Amino acid sequence: MTAQDTDIRPLEVAVTAPEPGDATLHFIGRIHTPFTERSQCPRQGKPDGPECRIEIFPPWDRALEGIEDFARIEVLYWLDKSRRDLVVQNPGHTDRTYGTFALRSPVRPNPIGTCLVDLLRVEGNVLVVRSLDCLDGTPLIDIKPDRCAFSPKAPPKP
Amino acid sequence: MTAQDTDIRPLEVAVTAPEPGDATLHFIGRIHTPFTERSQCPRQGKPDGPECRIEIFPPWDRALEGIEDFARIEVLYWLDKSRRDLVVQNPGHTDRTYGTFALRSPVRPNPIGTCLVDLLRVEGNVLVVRSLDCLDGTPLIDIKPDRCAFSPKAPPKP
Repeated sequence: MTAQDTDIRPLEVAVTAPEPGDATLHFIGRIHTPFTERSQCPRQGKPDGPECRIEIFPPWDRALEGIEDFARIEVLYWLDKSRRDLVVQNPGHTDRTYGTFALRSPVRPNPIGTCLVDLLRVEGNVLVVRSLDCLDGTPLIDIKPDRCAFSPKAPPKP
Repeated sequence: MTAQDTDIRPLEVAVTAPEPGDATLHFIGRIHTPFTERSQCPRQGKPDGPECRIEIFPPWDRALEGIEDFARIEVLYWLDKSRRDLVVQNPGHTDRTYGTFALRSPVRPNPIGTCLVDLLRVEGNVLVVRSLDCLDGTPLIDIKPDRCAFSPKAPPKP
């Protein structure tokens, strides 16, 4: 961790919480972006951002079957550099604070990022997308079709 | 687990994956819905669905500060009844299968549900929303402002 990861700004509030252990995640891939420093990451992924590559590890690559039918996908990833104990944050370095749940900051009790991206193409076990906001090497948690484009494939419920 | 949770349909493919242990989650609350059986859950949350209540446990309730400014929020929850080992699924019980990442099924290697909901009101440590698709008692992982409505509060990056 760098100082940027652990420092706390004026008026921010940290809490003491139990060790997280309610459920466990399995990293299913890795995200490759041009961003190697936190200061390079955009605040949010943008439609005109750079191409990024999402690598899916076996055996999960087989779960990509049919993904090419979707122009937009939702990506979930683990923000492994983030502290998890802030309930109040000061993103603007001013006298105005916000609760963590009123922000999309990477600092949160469960540091999961979600992004909707354009799927440009599939190259084997790699999805080429535009564009993500996370650091190069960020662990991948999940991929879903964008809910706007997705119609349930199961029969309707009564 | 019930038979519904563990059964596998024709043509579905399960894999053997390492025990998940790459990261740990901390449940920060609980979701209250009218759905007590899986068969009652809608395929996706709908704008005309029932009111649901999201209870946030202390000390995380303090992180709600400012959430009332958002009409729509993104909710992340842990689908604790789902198996995690299917890479190919058969949602329609037909001869057509789909990779897990081409579905929004609750069955996935990391069973995290995401939903965008209307925030109706805040009652202390409870958010009243319309509407969610998950079972009553589902563990809460995170709450964020809907990315469409959210403008970063930090200064722009150069």
